[in-house]
Amino acid sequence: MTAEPGEAQRLAQNAADRMYADDVASQSLGITIENVAPGAATARMRVTAAMVNGHAIAHGGYIFLVADTAFAFACNTRGARVAGSADIVFLRPVREGEELVAEARERALSGSSGVYDVTVRGMDGDVVAEFRGQSRRMREPSSDG
Amino acid sequence: MTAEPGEAQRLAQNAADRMYADDVASQSLGITIENVAPGAATARMRVTAAMVNGHAIAHGGYIFLVADTAFAFACNTRGARVAGSADIVFLRPVREGEELVAEARERALSGSSGVYDVTVRGMDGDVVAEFRGQSRRMREPSSDG
Amino acid sequence: MTAEPGEAQRLAQNAADRMYADDVASQSLGITIENVAPGAATARMRVTAAMVNGHAIAHGGYIFLVADTAFAFACNTRGARVAGSADIVFLRPVREGEELVAEARERALSGSSGVYDVTVRGMDGDVVAEFRGQSRRMREPSSDG
Amino acid sequence: MTAEPGEAQRLAQNAADRMYADDVASQSLGITIENVAPGAATARMRVTAAMVNGHAIAHGGYIFLVADTAFAFACNTRGARVAGSADIVFLRPVREGEELVAEARERALSGSSGVYDVTVRGMDGDVVAEFRGQSRRMREPSSDG
Repeated sequence: MTAEPGEAQRLAQNAADRMYADDVASQSLGITIENVAPGAATARMRVTAAMVNGHAIAHGGYIFLVADTAFAFACNTRGARVAGSADIVFLRPVREGEELVAEARERALSGSSGVYDVTVRGMDGDVVAEFRGQSRRMREPSSDG
Repeated sequence: MTAEPGEAQRLAQNAADRMYADDVASQSLGITIENVAPGAATARMRVTAAMVNGHAIAHGGYIFLVADTAFAFACNTRGARVAGSADIVFLRPVREGEELVAEARERALSGSSGVYDVTVRGMDGDVVAEFRGQSRRMREPSSDG
Repeated sequence: MTAEPGEAQRLAQNAADRMYADDVASQSLGITIENVAPGAATARMRVTAAMVNGHAIAHGGYIFLVADTAFAFACNTRGARVAGSADIVFLRPVREGEELVAEARERALSGSSGVYDVTVRGMDGDVVAEFRGQSRRMREPSSDG
Repeated sequence: MTAEPGEAQRLAQNAADRMYADDVASQSLGITIENVAPGAATARMRVTAAMVNGHAIAHGGYIFLVADTAFAFACNTRGARVAGSADIVFLRPVREGEELVAEARERALSGSSGVYDVTVRGMDGDVVAEFRGQSRRMREPSSDG
């Protein structure tokens, strides 16, 4: 918080780089991370044939997954934080081959809780889903948890 | 609704079988579907090395995905319905190798809207996430949409 | 947890009685609390003329409010806990004069987090809304919060 | 959509004025509506002694209620629409006497569904809650519903 703007940006990018290096899930799906800044990150993923469900559209779980990834990278720039809960509204079906762009922005940060909004866009920039996640600070295991 | 219990059960299972046959996403992830009944379905998935994120635990997106799959099969037993929105609360981290069991149950059905609860359990039957989905009847494209 | 069933029930009822005595909001709206047990409570409220909105139906805020009250009393039986977040699905309009019954049940309890489901029924027992709340343990003010 | 900017603004304000005239609930609570524009509205409410719960803070139901009111006025500018579902994250307690300002903005509009975000601020402009609502077009009763 007291870091210079340039320094804050550098720390956010470093946190994202370290996290991505270990993130087998995102790498396996071809997800890339860009535009990292304090409280923000963008994830990009192409919908492959393996992501299509019985209605011939992308499985909603994968649309959630790319949004959740952007959220995780955005809140990780604030220190080690994990997703506590999330909700998603699906606005239109997504086809095989479409590239999804999930843009996460911090909306509120209060004590150990953060609220992040992620907009997922498809081809032509139209919104396909709106996601909202709540983060909490990661804790050491304790008798409480 | 007017079908005999045995007939309703048979129609629900048929709907699930047809849907699964086309569901490349679920098949690719090794998800299996069981206990299908009107308004209900259970999905089972093992967390593989490819599903682990930068915190060395299962990517939340995959926990959502198995819950969303159970939800989709449960609401499909009511005719062609799609997910409109969903929310999830993550209760504990999930490790590589754990088998997740997501059990979907219809909670309310009113007009074109349905509410489904999905409990996701890990090894030993402890709850790892609680998911709630809202379905809506699938519509033909129109000037409205 | 180690209390005898009868003792646990008595402690839950005592917690509810103390909370209700100070709860001006619930009292002012004529909300009554019943069926208190560990992790559970039921709230009852009649929709008055002052609760009707511009569409001639009960303001959704009051339907949320009676559900949130049942939730608050249910999670208070687990010690001082507060609502962290909540969601609600509205299933049918509610008319003036209808009595609403909101029944809260604990769904999961994990460390400092709890998940509670509240079903709100109208006349004839039909479901008018489904609510889900997340509680967290109340904390002392700290530099963290 | 094809209206001139000035005309769209006038229609939005007219829709809000008609709705407010019939809205006994909002009037009774002293809620005022301002900054109405297509897809937007702000609601303002002071927390009275009658809104305080057993923890000596504003009942969360009233915080939801003022947010839900802003949401309802904002989506009503798009024609008769009703709340289908909503979620809220509570970020800090609210005291008696505080004035709450709930600012609703349209986030996405797709076919018969809309997504609206409402930020609720207290004294000094700090955020006390984040609300998200989903609207749907009001329908005539039918065999479907």
